Amino acid sequence: MTDRQHDTHASQRRPQRTYTVAVVGATGVVGGTVLRVLEERAFPVGELRLLASERSAGTTLEYAGEGVGVQGLHADAFAGVDLAFFAAGGSVSERFVPHAVAAGAVVIDKSSFYRQDPAVPLVVPEVNPEALATHQGIIATPNCSTIQMVVALKPIYDAAGIKRVVVSTYQAVSGAGKRGVDALAHQTAQAVAGDAVRDEFFPHRIAFNLLPHIDSFLPSGATKEEQKMVDETQKIFADPRIKVSATCVRVPVYGAHSEALNVETERKVTADEARALLAAFPGIAVIDDPQLLRYPMPIDAEGRDPVFVGRIREDNTVANGLNLWVVADNLRKGAALNAVQIAEELVRRQLL
Amino acid sequence: MTDRQHDTHASQRRPQRTYTVAVVGATGVVGGTVLRVLEERAFPVGELRLLASERSAGTTLEYAGEGVGVQGLHADAFAGVDLAFFAAGGSVSERFVPHAVAAGAVVIDKSSFYRQDPAVPLVVPEVNPEALATHQGIIATPNCSTIQMVVALKPIYDAAGIKRVVVSTYQAVSGAGKRGVDALAHQTAQAVAGDAVRDEFFPHRIAFNLLPHIDSFLPSGATKEEQKMVDETQKIFADPRIKVSATCVRVPVYGAHSEALNVETERKVTADEARALLAAFPGIAVIDDPQLLRYPMPIDAEGRDPVFVGRIREDNTVANGLNLWVVADNLRKGAALNAVQIAEELVRRQLL
Repeated sequence: MTDRQHDTHASQRRPQRTYTVAVVGATGVVGGTVLRVLEERAFPVGELRLLASERSAGTTLEYAGEGVGVQGLHADAFAGVDLAFFAAGGSVSERFVPHAVAAGAVVIDKSSFYRQDPAVPLVVPEVNPEALATHQGIIATPNCSTIQMVVALKPIYDAAGIKRVVVSTYQAVSGAGKRGVDALAHQTAQAVAGDAVRDEFFPHRIAFNLLPHIDSFLPSGATKEEQKMVDETQKIFADPRIKVSATCVRVPVYGAHSEALNVETERKVTADEARALLAAFPGIAVIDDPQLLRYPMPIDAEGRDPVFVGRIREDNTVANGLNLWVVADNLRKGAALNAVQIAEELVRRQLL
Repeated sequence: MTDRQHDTHASQRRPQRTYTVAVVGATGVVGGTVLRVLEERAFPVGELRLLASERSAGTTLEYAGEGVGVQGLHADAFAGVDLAFFAAGGSVSERFVPHAVAAGAVVIDKSSFYRQDPAVPLVVPEVNPEALATHQGIIATPNCSTIQMVVALKPIYDAAGIKRVVVSTYQAVSGAGKRGVDALAHQTAQAVAGDAVRDEFFPHRIAFNLLPHIDSFLPSGATKEEQKMVDETQKIFADPRIKVSATCVRVPVYGAHSEALNVETERKVTADEARALLAAFPGIAVIDDPQLLRYPMPIDAEGRDPVFVGRIREDNTVANGLNLWVVADNLRKGAALNAVQIAEELVRRQLL
């Protein structure tokens, strides 16, 4: 008997409950990735309701081999919905999440709107699944740059405690959505053709350039993106003593964010110990064999699920220092996959 | 009387001494930039001797509006040379620098070969010009990634002392020479055309990708590029107590390296104080007005002389923390300009 036959047999014995699932922002890059991840992981979707702006309503998207029409997003679009993924902007979440909750749906929100709300769990399933227990209808999923960092930090945090992290990011244009991807493609094609490169979408040219600027600037001089890495990390670990200093930079890469982490632990962790802790942790793939030129790179991480960690080195400039290089697909683990994993965890814990 | 007439008059009264200058590696990207910088700054070149491999001998390069033939590099090519810029690799410096010195030339070497030799000053003129006084015929110019960092650190070091620096780099392909530039151009054109992208020169694809790998790996797990940032910084400041932890990353940018620095000073420096110290320092241009979307970027730094510093922020996760974003043209201040500034300083101090 193969595993597959066994699974089929088991599901015949105990019919699995299915859920009416809404995806808000279904036509965007994160929404589209939510659909792909739900399919791949065979999430028990009964009815699928695709919601987007009136502009996109009427188009058809494919799910599990069938066409599903996109409907306009309205306050009354959530009747009968068990689970709603919000993958549009913060203003859409602000306006429509309350309607989804009022209709009885559990919302998994990708936007930043609810993340710092004390009543809303902010969850990375490998890190703090226990936070789901207290949800009141809304669960927030963190910013992409935070998710891959906290996954890489978690096994080290559990083993040795973490005092301080200095992180520099190298973030892909897909983190800015379809228009970010288009801007890099258009500008690169203009440059290759020898034409003048027109600024588009980003505040400055992104082709063959770097922008030390993601999201808007705060009075402190930090960007919101940088402040999110501080606030969200502390909330996810439920530990306000973890100190994070972040510099967030947009790079001309399509998919997958990279991060250079300098970590100061409470007690000493050798590079070998860190490597073993990371390799044993769910959701992490260690690629760390520099003599064979093996280390994580965004082109290898794009389209894949793990958080890839390499360049694992002790940093002897502090008592207990570690350097890590962390790469993950920002649309998958950084967004859609994390949201679907939250849904799976809600099912597993009977919280849906 | 215009300034120019005045200058002409002055030079008629006191004829300036000129120097026989050799440029080894004249056909490479750094050698070519040395020629441009010598021209721009009107270095008192008498005879100019361009030297390169036999393969390049016979070609003609332009200098100050005239064609100069490139000669093959031989042990006896340095007769009568006052000043020799070495802008070829370490093996060329190892083999030919002793011949240049024996012929009476003062050598300014861009390669890494002599940098850690205790008898060889390693000089950034804004930082440690006094080290030139003891030269014995060879002065080394540091690695590109080190130069722009130590220029940015110097005014802060002088004012407040520096205990530790965590640096993540974003390094342009021109740092790997003409073949690095060609690889990015070819691979990007292949990707834009929808063709398969062929690996070329770099260990992995560089177009739309990042490589956390510059120069070769050491047994410690660090790259030589990362170790250079540690060793060279300590030698330039003549202070082995400065701790540096570096992660060096190649990015798909043509010209100008960028660096995210997290600096821990001995005494507190506010962001405003740091901004004032940096703005007053020769060779630094502060671009730090994020509300107007002004911050240093590689496309703006390429072809320009200053070390650009922005995103100046206090980091309150340590007692005396500062974050800086530092961008400079790696072929100019990172290589050719620094070498020519060393030559100017030798002239000024009558050490040539």
